Amino acid sequence: MATLKPPADPETNARVKAVFDDIRATRKTDFVNNLWRHLAFDPALLERTWGEVKALMATPSTLDPLTKELIYIAVSITNGCSYCVHSHTAAARGHGMTSAQHAELMSIVALAAKTNQLATALQLPIDKVFDVGA
Amino acid sequence: MATLKPPADPETNARVKAVFDDIRATRKTDFVNNLWRHLAFDPALLERTWGEVKALMATPSTLDPLTKELIYIAVSITNGCSYCVHSHTAAARGHGMTSAQHAELMSIVALAAKTNQLATALQLPIDKVFDVGA
Amino acid sequence: MATLKPPADPETNARVKAVFDDIRATRKTDFVNNLWRHLAFDPALLERTWGEVKALMATPSTLDPLTKELIYIAVSITNGCSYCVHSHTAAARGHGMTSAQHAELMSIVALAAKTNQLATALQLPIDKVFDVGA
Amino acid sequence: MATLKPPADPETNARVKAVFDDIRATRKTDFVNNLWRHLAFDPALLERTWGEVKALMATPSTLDPLTKELIYIAVSITNGCSYCVHSHTAAARGHGMTSAQHAELMSIVALAAKTNQLATALQLPIDKVFDVGA
Amino acid sequence: MATLKPPADPETNARVKAVFDDIRATRKTDFVNNLWRHLAFDPALLERTWGEVKALMATPSTLDPLTKELIYIAVSITNGCSYCVHSHTAAARGHGMTSAQHAELMSIVALAAKTNQLATALQLPIDKVFDVGA
Amino acid sequence: MATLKPPADPETNARVKAVFDDIRATRKTDFVNNLWRHLAFDPALLERTWGEVKALMATPSTLDPLTKELIYIAVSITNGCSYCVHSHTAAARGHGMTSAQHAELMSIVALAAKTNQLATALQLPIDKVFDVGA
Repeated sequence: MATLKPPADPETNARVKAVFDDIRATRKTDFVNNLWRHLAFDPALLERTWGEVKALMATPSTLDPLTKELIYIAVSITNGCSYCVHSHTAAARGHGMTSAQHAELMSIVALAAKTNQLATALQLPIDKVFDVGA
Repeated sequence: MATLKPPADPETNARVKAVFDDIRATRKTDFVNNLWRHLAFDPALLERTWGEVKALMATPSTLDPLTKELIYIAVSITNGCSYCVHSHTAAARGHGMTSAQHAELMSIVALAAKTNQLATALQLPIDKVFDVGA
Repeated sequence: MATLKPPADPETNARVKAVFDDIRATRKTDFVNNLWRHLAFDPALLERTWGEVKALMATPSTLDPLTKELIYIAVSITNGCSYCVHSHTAAARGHGMTSAQHAELMSIVALAAKTNQLATALQLPIDKVFDVGA
Repeated sequence: MATLKPPADPETNARVKAVFDDIRATRKTDFVNNLWRHLAFDPALLERTWGEVKALMATPSTLDPLTKELIYIAVSITNGCSYCVHSHTAAARGHGMTSAQHAELMSIVALAAKTNQLATALQLPIDKVFDVGA
Repeated sequence: MATLKPPADPETNARVKAVFDDIRATRKTDFVNNLWRHLAFDPALLERTWGEVKALMATPSTLDPLTKELIYIAVSITNGCSYCVHSHTAAARGHGMTSAQHAELMSIVALAAKTNQLATALQLPIDKVFDVGA
Repeated sequence: MATLKPPADPETNARVKAVFDDIRATRKTDFVNNLWRHLAFDPALLERTWGEVKALMATPSTLDPLTKELIYIAVSITNGCSYCVHSHTAAARGHGMTSAQHAELMSIVALAAKTNQLATALQLPIDKVFDVGA
């Protein structure tokens, strides 16, 4: 159950309809997932959020689409966001993530969390060689 | 300042020396960074940790070395690990990360954190289409 | 499902009954939510926790009741606590939070998470002007 | 030390200069803090980030400026972002936060973290009464 | 629902069967919980993970088995991992955790989170006396 | 540098002096660390915080003093609180933590973070056997 009730008929709002249409066109699917259906309660927030997701995730750039999804999943796991882990794992599969890559992603995310804990437990001084300004 | 004093002369211990030698050989550099110098206080912990880092990060696999470092940085930022952000940003540069890719990595990590918060604030129900078992 | 079974008949314990009565009187409702029903397994922990919540959240102070709930929700989202996001969103609505304020709260929480990630990714030096002791 | 070297003379870039000028005009100060000086390495990221901060934090809305800063600090503390805790505590003081309000903010942030842990330790079922769709 | 479908008949894979057999022998039970059933999709990841859990958690060492589970629960609560809070609370009960100890664990985890927030809010300088290298 | 300037002469305030005296008597040392020196800016917050720390950490209970400190450190590492990692590692040493126990604590904290990530990445369904109410 969500903390707010999504609009029953969101596309009667022209701004919401425009965003939903753009989501469908960009992703080449009729499906609009729950994040957007709930954000529709505030059309300005919906527009801003979709605008940013589209610009960064659905526009050719210096990183390929699968790499971008892997980074997104890594953050979502670390933040413990169930919804986001599900939606971006699905997106990564849509961009061709194999089972072996999924296992490797999980292994690296888990290893990073592990060495993060060790470094924090040790309160390590940062090596001078890492100083880009030096 | 760290929470423990690293061994003053770690390579007098044969197990530590073997790990340090392998770090140098694997990375083709004489430099051994502070994580390993501090973990040397417990040779078994040092061996296990380096063994895992080497197997996952320094062995050819289904993800390329730069992608692996980008995932590592994403987790380290989200966990707020200063040392790890520094060391893995340096490693990503060593694997060819450009300034534009660095900016894009930061943008995606920041966007993921943002939509993680929105999804958690909304307590979104997970769309049925994401259910791989359905 | 919880990690412990709440007492079936908690108010047979006089200390639990006193806390539940105080919750009802303070909140002017017969409803006692699951946090308190589960903490009833340890009356001392129940008393301490309710005492602190009452003193900080249900007593007039320098911040108004709605602001206090917004701060509480912000922390609960960031910690990924589903139960707390639900209960404090409900409490904020009880203190008059409008839909527009809810949207604004989410927007700020999401923006803060985003710039937190940027600042951590950059490992920014703290500006001297922020030093209150200087 | 940061993970990248900020441009030595950022305002020779017209896009950076425009953002810095807008920061100074909006905040009525000559001071431009390190977040913006470092983001200047990527003018597009700088523009997007400042645009969002300005729209949400420096524009009249349904929440007053001090409340917005308190929410920002709460998230920044919970994410453990040193730079952000410093910069937004300074901003809150600029918006009139008193020492008593600062103490109360900290008390609520600490209490929320505490009850978040209790709710997560207990894995509490969410009360039906919190279901806005019911 | 999980992000991947666990193998329907995992023990037809000899490596998976060997791990499951070792889990049963080590824990003296026929029950193999969902973590291992899902990790079976990648036998190498399953072997590495179980190997590490067995070595640290199921081998006599300098900390007693209950203390190790209490530490594990504390991390799992703080990371907001529902599955892990459930499985390790069950494990702690299996090692004799009483209801009073459970209440005390929760109280300390909650107090630590609280003072963590205060220390981060204050951005405390570290006392010189804590410097082990001084 | 801290976000507030601690009182220059805190013990001229009788409530602060009483807390500081109790800290010294309880810990049998003249040293009062920075957490308390900074919380002295708000005597009520200082009193409440010390009262809770003393009751839980410095009073005989169902867990021994070293176990309590290990739990405290585990939470502090996971929350990334530098000050707390330092102060509680020092406290654990004061209660007899050996170097081998320190290594083991770090190993378990790191392993827990690792399996937390795996469980969250997999979005594991909770095994029925963990249901205490079933």
